[in-house]
Amino acid sequence: MKNLFSMKDLTTEEIYKLLKTAESFAKGECWTPEEQTFAVNLFFEPSTRTKTSFEMAERKLGIEVIPFEAGASSILKGETMEDTLRTLESIGVDLAVIRHKQDAFYEDLAGKFNMRIINGGDGCGQHPTQSLLDLLTIKQEFGKFEGLKVTIVGDLSHSRVARSNTEALTTLGAEVYYSGPPEWFEGDAANSEYYVDIDEAISFSDVLMLLRIQHERHDSTMDHSAEHYHERYGLTVERENKMKPSGIIMHPGPVNRGVEIADSLVDSGKSRIFKQMENGVYARMAVLKHLLEK
Amino acid sequence: MKNLFSMKDLTTEEIYKLLKTAESFAKGECWTPEEQTFAVNLFFEPSTRTKTSFEMAERKLGIEVIPFEAGASSILKGETMEDTLRTLESIGVDLAVIRHKQDAFYEDLAGKFNMRIINGGDGCGQHPTQSLLDLLTIKQEFGKFEGLKVTIVGDLSHSRVARSNTEALTTLGAEVYYSGPPEWFEGDAANSEYYVDIDEAISFSDVLMLLRIQHERHDSTMDHSAEHYHERYGLTVERENKMKPSGIIMHPGPVNRGVEIADSLVDSGKSRIFKQMENGVYARMAVLKHLLEK
Amino acid sequence: MKNLFSMKDLTTEEIYKLLKTAESFAKGECWTPEEQTFAVNLFFEPSTRTKTSFEMAERKLGIEVIPFEAGASSILKGETMEDTLRTLESIGVDLAVIRHKQDAFYEDLAGKFNMRIINGGDGCGQHPTQSLLDLLTIKQEFGKFEGLKVTIVGDLSHSRVARSNTEALTTLGAEVYYSGPPEWFEGDAANSEYYVDIDEAISFSDVLMLLRIQHERHDSTMDHSAEHYHERYGLTVERENKMKPSGIIMHPGPVNRGVEIADSLVDSGKSRIFKQMENGVYARMAVLKHLLEK
Repeated sequence: MKNLFSMKDLTTEEIYKLLKTAESFAKGECWTPEEQTFAVNLFFEPSTRTKTSFEMAERKLGIEVIPFEAGASSILKGETMEDTLRTLESIGVDLAVIRHKQDAFYEDLAGKFNMRIINGGDGCGQHPTQSLLDLLTIKQEFGKFEGLKVTIVGDLSHSRVARSNTEALTTLGAEVYYSGPPEWFEGDAANSEYYVDIDEAISFSDVLMLLRIQHERHDSTMDHSAEHYHERYGLTVERENKMKPSGIIMHPGPVNRGVEIADSLVDSGKSRIFKQMENGVYARMAVLKHLLEK
Repeated sequence: MKNLFSMKDLTTEEIYKLLKTAESFAKGECWTPEEQTFAVNLFFEPSTRTKTSFEMAERKLGIEVIPFEAGASSILKGETMEDTLRTLESIGVDLAVIRHKQDAFYEDLAGKFNMRIINGGDGCGQHPTQSLLDLLTIKQEFGKFEGLKVTIVGDLSHSRVARSNTEALTTLGAEVYYSGPPEWFEGDAANSEYYVDIDEAISFSDVLMLLRIQHERHDSTMDHSAEHYHERYGLTVERENKMKPSGIIMHPGPVNRGVEIADSLVDSGKSRIFKQMENGVYARMAVLKHLLEK
Repeated sequence: MKNLFSMKDLTTEEIYKLLKTAESFAKGECWTPEEQTFAVNLFFEPSTRTKTSFEMAERKLGIEVIPFEAGASSILKGETMEDTLRTLESIGVDLAVIRHKQDAFYEDLAGKFNMRIINGGDGCGQHPTQSLLDLLTIKQEFGKFEGLKVTIVGDLSHSRVARSNTEALTTLGAEVYYSGPPEWFEGDAANSEYYVDIDEAISFSDVLMLLRIQHERHDSTMDHSAEHYHERYGLTVERENKMKPSGIIMHPGPVNRGVEIADSLVDSGKSRIFKQMENGVYARMAVLKHLLEK
């Protein structure tokens, strides 16, 4: 494994191996590269949690993180991303995490670098480490994926989380359903066996995976007010009461309280939202270890 | 001690304990947390000296500092400060230093986090580590606080330094006076025994604590030109000559040379301005140690 | 050696000593300051490669790098650079790297600080560590400077690279020629023995040192389209074919592909462009060591 661009790059065996390593980090196990190792986090889109989570994972492994302000970089002077990466590689950087708004930005980069590259989120495409932390959270809870019913609720067409998770969960044997505004479902919601109304989803789902309403991605097409969305598609307190006793709530964050989920449920007993954030560090440590170890 | 929000949180005994620890750091003593420890400095207002001073203090104690660009954070996406902090805590951050323009932003945070929180300056409210470094500088100089006459000169109503220091100095037995434009004094300057003219203050003060004229805080009410302010309320070379031989000059910085203080006096024999900056690192190391040690 | 402001500060002997140290770092040798050491990189102009290169050099030597965002600093509040530096020195910073758009900003700073200062590029003035990495690259290639013919091609009047390199190369015994638009040559190009046409330069140069066309520095005087520049003054594939077999191509980056140099030549056999970037780290490690060692 040299890079991690997409969940599609990983075999089922590799996914299980990464989850096992992540679980060992969650239990406090340590690992450090043999030589001084340098990473850079190139975030061309703002993000608190993913960037900070990678930074924590890197520091916990004793990796040196070289700061890189995307806004002040030579890319402003017209340099291509490939030349920026080649510069960083020449300078001695061993690993780059890249978030970029362009879908599949990584396609041009494969095979060109000795430096390891991790996709930290591309446009409306993939977000593989988010997917791994979600899988880790589900595995910790249920011990397996086979036969689990997972419903992803919300802004499906713009979500790299939905995309990455659908592929991985299906491969691992879970059944994935979708809910939310039917116009955000890719395909014919009315006739799809995978599109379900939120009230139906509540009744059978082991995992409710709520997505963030990304106001910043589709202001023009946003025809749902926050209140209307919450009432019609969101996880209200009433709906939460009807969930399976063993069911859990997930959300990649940042949460729009009172929109995707009622304010009081963010911290509730069924919520694994902050557990997901904690797991993000372990999942990323696992990816870093697998990419860097000899 | 779990957090440091305000000087009011500290007992006299705790203040003396912190100063003693700071003095030991000034003498070169070392201390490091037993486990790998992570701090984040959340500065929602620009600051060179306070942020850099905390960063130095943290590094000298072997604490890992996770970078956080407030301008690129999820707070831009509408996340509340509480959710940002909960995210950081979930990710494994042990301590946060927060500077924010909202007065008493910390009131909503008390008791909600295991993560330690230090107020790095709130609006026109408190700035407890600045106060501690000022106390340290005075203690190094005079060995005591009882009976000292300290005059705070300048922009009293907007100053968190004035507020924090008044409380602490009074508690410790010093007498605190005020000077500067009377309209910036809270209360009836003409009839207050604590409001004194600068020329009077010069004659009896052991410590002249000059405040920065914060142009950025009250451009509309600023009816004093720089020259006029210096002439009427500032520390001119003539005034400095009339100070007590043992008197010292303090200023939290950044200095407006030629406004609060004559250019040539910034580096003069009575000035402790750069000593204060040095002491800032020791005072912050002391606070960090007291918050982090088991 | 206390500071490095300009190549003019260095004797020939010092240059050779720095290159020798840089070569030892290139071979994997290590060195670390005896005590915990703090550096700050003050970049008032954007730069990926120089800032990152210094950061790598510092980290490889075990130096702690205190982050400093020039855009969020107290300089915004009107503080002078000298006061900012004095603050950093008071706080405990041992070394500052400064890039600033003002020519010879460092002239006012000499002799005022115990803190070591490195010029990381001043306006259209000097860029001594770039010069040292260029010298290192040439020395690795040819083992000497005496008698080498080096042609600097491009934006001569705005280039701190051209200025720094001319002085150093001449001192070390190389012959320096210039090519590019004659109006960018300081002096009477038509009658200068040092100004040569690019096609002539190709035939005799051991080193072709291409400069970046700095669009951001002279948009108004830029009367050459990218295509025209490449055709008339750039290193085309045809021209490269006529170079001496032992000749090499250098460029400080970031490269405007298809302007100064044909796209396909950036990675070609004669190119030392990425080698230069690698060498930048070793050259800076050498400067840091010489400034910091007792």
